[in-house]
Amino acid sequence: MGQSTWEQLCSYQRETALLSSTLAVLGWDERTGMPPAAGSYRAEQLTYLSGMIHQRQTAKQLDDWLTELAESDLADDPHSDAGTTIRQLRREYVRRTKLPQTLVEELTRAAVLGQQAWVSARANDSFAEFKPHLEKLLSLKQQEADAIGHEGCRYDALLDEYEPGAKTSEVATVLNQLCEALVPLIQQIKESSQKAPSELLRRDYPVDAQRKIGVEAATAVGFDFQRGRLDETEHPFCTSLGPNDCRILTRYDSSFFASAFFGTLHEAGHGIYDQGLRTELHGLPPGEYVSLGIHESQSRLWENFVGRSLAFWEYFFPRAQELFPQALTSVSVEQFYAAVNDVQPSLIRVEADEATYNLHIIIRFELEQALVDGTLAVDDLPDAWNQKYSDYLGITPPSNADGVLQDIHWSGGAIGYFSTYSLGNLYAAQFFRQARLDLGDLDAMFAAGEFTPLRQWLQTKIHQVGQCYSAAGILEQVTGEPLQHQPLVDHLYAKYGLLYGVTP
Amino acid sequence: MGQSTWEQLCSYQRETALLSSTLAVLGWDERTGMPPAAGSYRAEQLTYLSGMIHQRQTAKQLDDWLTELAESDLADDPHSDAGTTIRQLRREYVRRTKLPQTLVEELTRAAVLGQQAWVSARANDSFAEFKPHLEKLLSLKQQEADAIGHEGCRYDALLDEYEPGAKTSEVATVLNQLCEALVPLIQQIKESSQKAPSELLRRDYPVDAQRKIGVEAATAVGFDFQRGRLDETEHPFCTSLGPNDCRILTRYDSSFFASAFFGTLHEAGHGIYDQGLRTELHGLPPGEYVSLGIHESQSRLWENFVGRSLAFWEYFFPRAQELFPQALTSVSVEQFYAAVNDVQPSLIRVEADEATYNLHIIIRFELEQALVDGTLAVDDLPDAWNQKYSDYLGITPPSNADGVLQDIHWSGGAIGYFSTYSLGNLYAAQFFRQARLDLGDLDAMFAAGEFTPLRQWLQTKIHQVGQCYSAAGILEQVTGEPLQHQPLVDHLYAKYGLLYGVTP
Repeated sequence: MGQSTWEQLCSYQRETALLSSTLAVLGWDERTGMPPAAGSYRAEQLTYLSGMIHQRQTAKQLDDWLTELAESDLADDPHSDAGTTIRQLRREYVRRTKLPQTLVEELTRAAVLGQQAWVSARANDSFAEFKPHLEKLLSLKQQEADAIGHEGCRYDALLDEYEPGAKTSEVATVLNQLCEALVPLIQQIKESSQKAPSELLRRDYPVDAQRKIGVEAATAVGFDFQRGRLDETEHPFCTSLGPNDCRILTRYDSSFFASAFFGTLHEAGHGIYDQGLRTELHGLPPGEYVSLGIHESQSRLWENFVGRSLAFWEYFFPRAQELFPQALTSVSVEQFYAAVNDVQPSLIRVEADEATYNLHIIIRFELEQALVDGTLAVDDLPDAWNQKYSDYLGITPPSNADGVLQDIHWSGGAIGYFSTYSLGNLYAAQFFRQARLDLGDLDAMFAAGEFTPLRQWLQTKIHQVGQCYSAAGILEQVTGEPLQHQPLVDHLYAKYGLLYGVTP
Repeated sequence: MGQSTWEQLCSYQRETALLSSTLAVLGWDERTGMPPAAGSYRAEQLTYLSGMIHQRQTAKQLDDWLTELAESDLADDPHSDAGTTIRQLRREYVRRTKLPQTLVEELTRAAVLGQQAWVSARANDSFAEFKPHLEKLLSLKQQEADAIGHEGCRYDALLDEYEPGAKTSEVATVLNQLCEALVPLIQQIKESSQKAPSELLRRDYPVDAQRKIGVEAATAVGFDFQRGRLDETEHPFCTSLGPNDCRILTRYDSSFFASAFFGTLHEAGHGIYDQGLRTELHGLPPGEYVSLGIHESQSRLWENFVGRSLAFWEYFFPRAQELFPQALTSVSVEQFYAAVNDVQPSLIRVEADEATYNLHIIIRFELEQALVDGTLAVDDLPDAWNQKYSDYLGITPPSNADGVLQDIHWSGGAIGYFSTYSLGNLYAAQFFRQARLDLGDLDAMFAAGEFTPLRQWLQTKIHQVGQCYSAAGILEQVTGEPLQHQPLVDHLYAKYGLLYGVTP
């Protein structure tokens, strides 16, 4: 009897997944191929399907099944596939049904209007245009957090959507430690007499050859093009349209090598996680990604820990020279490696290097918390933003367009999201350190073009776990340790010690 | 009270259209971007959405609304938007509910298996591989025809799905007349001493420039790229993913000009029809295309009557010379015009010229009828196919791959479909003759690059009518005449009289 309810639940979830993945097709197409005038009808399609999915996800039937199954043997082991399904679906059900329908609809509308206003506000460098929308969104997100409930820290309720189980205070502690370590590191690099020859990345890099080396690198690290593809877009991303259909997107600049290449590796890293999930459990929590932080750890690991290593370029540089003879013939692999590891405090998060990137995130994380708990007014946000850029990075944005208006996230209601980017970097460092311990000489493998052992290690230890453990649980299981800043700091000092002569 | 039921019906239909258009997005993506391994999950998505749509289209609620509305004032004028909606939805409802659910499912499955088998059978040149599938499909289509009902001619029931209201006997009469006129015309061309310099189309035509001239030509004739786009695919087609989202697709061959260029014009013609429908009625019969024959008439009209006219090339040839200097510098517009109007009996329908094309269709139409009424066994089909190619075109296929296995249609259950291609040519000739009478010197307009008057005439007279009149009704309204073969024959003699010296 329990078994039959279980089967009904699974097939119900798989049907919901058919709708969600169809929604993903609509979203992918909207951001790649859709003609300009098609937007409003596409919004109708998306709204209609979203409504259908929401209805299924908050149906009384689901509640009944989950209540019955929670009492059954299947729920005995909370980390088994069945136990995980019952636990995680209950978690999502509770979260969703706590939100009044009117709030969900208001948020959807405010996010659509907010993104439209943001595009225009950014183009016009006008924070005033965006302000009322951000105020509205913030107020709705505060209501959302209060409806979901929290123990004093409203931000916890929002963070929990993106990084289930994470606590703001714990994240803040580690990010503060990271910040305290990064500021002097970056200062040392700034003062170092050793400079990276970054101009060699700004030569003529024909787009066709960039596409070719991007596909070769993504293939080498294990992105499966039988089950995915690479396309071009304005704002790079990765999305899965089904268990065997992962789409990654990048953008090309014919006079800059780094953004498409590392962008492709980054999105391929996301894609390898999606492709590493257990396909037979697609649509059920044990077959789904566990958190944004863990997702980001996979993209960062392949982009930075692998893709920006000397060993990686020992393998790939000859091919790069073949494909870009004009730009790279008289360049050495050491020069190229130094160039792709240039550190420069800069204004724009998405262009930031491996060291300064986390400061961009910490700034946003601190501002988000203050906005959400009400200690910072939206009116005062641009000044607070600029002050933090001056404090942490030593630079002041000349405009709001290159400052507080640069990110799309808040305009779409994604508030409480930013810290997952730094969590991704921290997790990546901890995982990578453990992989070295488990697998031996990774550098020798990379230099020989062998990336399969690392990918399989990640798949077994992380991807295939799905949601059977939380992000913190996976970290603990894989490394035996909780979240901490030191492995990332060690990684950066090891790399920049050689390149810039910095010391801890 | 009638009004409120009417509003409910309309919003119900618009919701169904949101699902159908989403299905179209899935289909477009399947044929353009989908990774190889994603096929089986995509099939699940398509099946799930199709099922949902079928349920809505056969719901008792729909029946009730239509019954109530048929008694209301709204149904008084059968050609008004409301009257048309009520009439056509009833027609579709009756057709759909006559088919047993098991038959619908068997047909869906047989079509999927049939297409897979056809791909392999064609590659292996093995009719035996395809035979059991065609037998199965044929038997199911016969059951479908009998379930729908007919007055003695089973083929009528199938034809009616694609060309509502058309009768097999009437179509056969006109196509026989056409055939009798075409055979001696083609014979005269074959014997003519005047030959088209068709080799000049087989020079070096760089794909980028082909894409450019294709977009320019499609834009010139009125395809709106704000509401549509052009992509590349193996099997060209046109599909609408919403009222403002028409996708056309073509394929390029860098050493042949004609297939991509006329393919683009052809698909643009389909697209202009879709874009010419009344967008505010999207999802309701008065805002939908009326029949495949009329749809094809619009593609053929722009492809052949406009795109293969001397006047068109008087305008476009200088641009073609600019884009393809190597191929066209020493070519005259008259030579180019003759080349794009080369007539050669050939084996493959999709590569056939304007004159022989209809013989390919007539062959299929005759064979389909014999298969459906049971006078031809599938076993005897390859011989019958080859005999007709010999009789009508004077050539015999050297293999089944280039003969009876060349078309995808039957393998997917599209039996009763082929004649709409020739209907399209016949309608196009009748419409075009009338447009000349109504608009004056079309050639002078084309030579000046003015295509808007013709497009607007087509939009007003045909596109915006939607399903308010049947195909025959539209033809009668626009030209004052029923379907007939003479205008097409006249058009061909006028063109080939000059090029080949033929006389009626």
